[in-house]
Amino acid sequence: MAIQLYDLAGKDPAIMFGPFAWRVRMALLHKGLDFEVRPWRFAERETSSVKSVPILIDGDVTISDSLQIVRYLDEAYPDRPRLIEGSVGEANVSLVQALCGTNVFPACISIAVLPVLGILDEPSRDYFRASREAMFGATLEEVNAPDAETGRANLAKGLKPFDEALKNVRFLGGNQMSYADCALFGVLKWADIAGKYRSIDEGSHVGQWFTTLESMFNGYAAKAPRFREVGAYA
Amino acid sequence: MAIQLYDLAGKDPAIMFGPFAWRVRMALLHKGLDFEVRPWRFAERETSSVKSVPILIDGDVTISDSLQIVRYLDEAYPDRPRLIEGSVGEANVSLVQALCGTNVFPACISIAVLPVLGILDEPSRDYFRASREAMFGATLEEVNAPDAETGRANLAKGLKPFDEALKNVRFLGGNQMSYADCALFGVLKWADIAGKYRSIDEGSHVGQWFTTLESMFNGYAAKAPRFREVGAYA
Repeated sequence: MAIQLYDLAGKDPAIMFGPFAWRVRMALLHKGLDFEVRPWRFAERETSSVKSVPILIDGDVTISDSLQIVRYLDEAYPDRPRLIEGSVGEANVSLVQALCGTNVFPACISIAVLPVLGILDEPSRDYFRASREAMFGATLEEVNAPDAETGRANLAKGLKPFDEALKNVRFLGGNQMSYADCALFGVLKWADIAGKYRSIDEGSHVGQWFTTLESMFNGYAAKAPRFREVGAYA
Repeated sequence: MAIQLYDLAGKDPAIMFGPFAWRVRMALLHKGLDFEVRPWRFAERETSSVKSVPILIDGDVTISDSLQIVRYLDEAYPDRPRLIEGSVGEANVSLVQALCGTNVFPACISIAVLPVLGILDEPSRDYFRASREAMFGATLEEVNAPDAETGRANLAKGLKPFDEALKNVRFLGGNQMSYADCALFGVLKWADIAGKYRSIDEGSHVGQWFTTLESMFNGYAAKAPRFREVGAYA
């Protein structure tokens, strides 16, 4: 049986969007492993053994947390392209993830989080609002960028160090794709899927890197349904 | 003859402080190469062939720009510990330098730049003020943090992604010191030498990493004279 990956879903189970699951999707594609994505909703945490996603199930192995999943994939499939190479790779991923946390997530939250509320199933909404507002110390409406111009400016500012770095290198981990790329891409793809507008500046260095990754693996990420294109907000 | 490194100096030629030369000093120490540091003052750009520092002279090779110098050292001394290893190392250094530019330099400027003016030789001061104010679009007094508390807060904020990353790894390039460490350290050491107070939070992850690097190579960086300790402001 193919690897199973559980991801966040809206009321339409075909609409899946979790930033951390996107990191894992790209990691699985990089390793060339077959996988199926299964929808999971916040409301299921009350009744299911799955309390958060992503979760990866590979035969009788079950792992949560995207970085743990990635470490497992490198260990279980050593003949496939590596995701994290040596301690330099660890250090690089560590910095990329830290920078996602301090700079990129806050910007993406201002683009994606209120739209996400709009596409959730009814039973998940209260939990989502309450947990996120406690996390942010502000209402979803307060953190939401008032318009596309503000959202895009927030994101460009958060991405500035990555944009500088990508002037000099093709991928965040060097000449070839690695998990460092998946880590940033997952956050950005989440904002791209959930947001009411395309938020990345495609002409920037990071924008060119993003569209390159979207086009890889037969355009897997480019083809993923965006809320705004499939009437998910309706 | 030992390698010569030209660094920024104040009116007292023993007080040398350039952030980019500090990157190169640490790189030379990492490679275990003997070197002598020579003072250079901004005013000399009018009369000398040296227009900016750092400049490294190794026999009949003369190189400027800290990253070019580092590439040269790895190429000329391949048997010594490497500073930048492969394309992963390049990508890592690229991101660290970018993040220094967007996050760390602005904070260090608020700590160090007005104090630097105070220790320069008279002929260098006008150039320093005019060039820096044009760069910042503000006066040196305007960019200067009004007190130590503000300076330290600026720096802690700028260092946040590095602090997160250093929770998981010992050095910025993995298990061992590499040029990624030199790149951040140089900026911080500049602020430490020039600033009127110790600006780094020694209890933070990045503070612990900083004091580790200060203590390496027989405490080379720890022993470097700080303006505030040697009466340079007088």
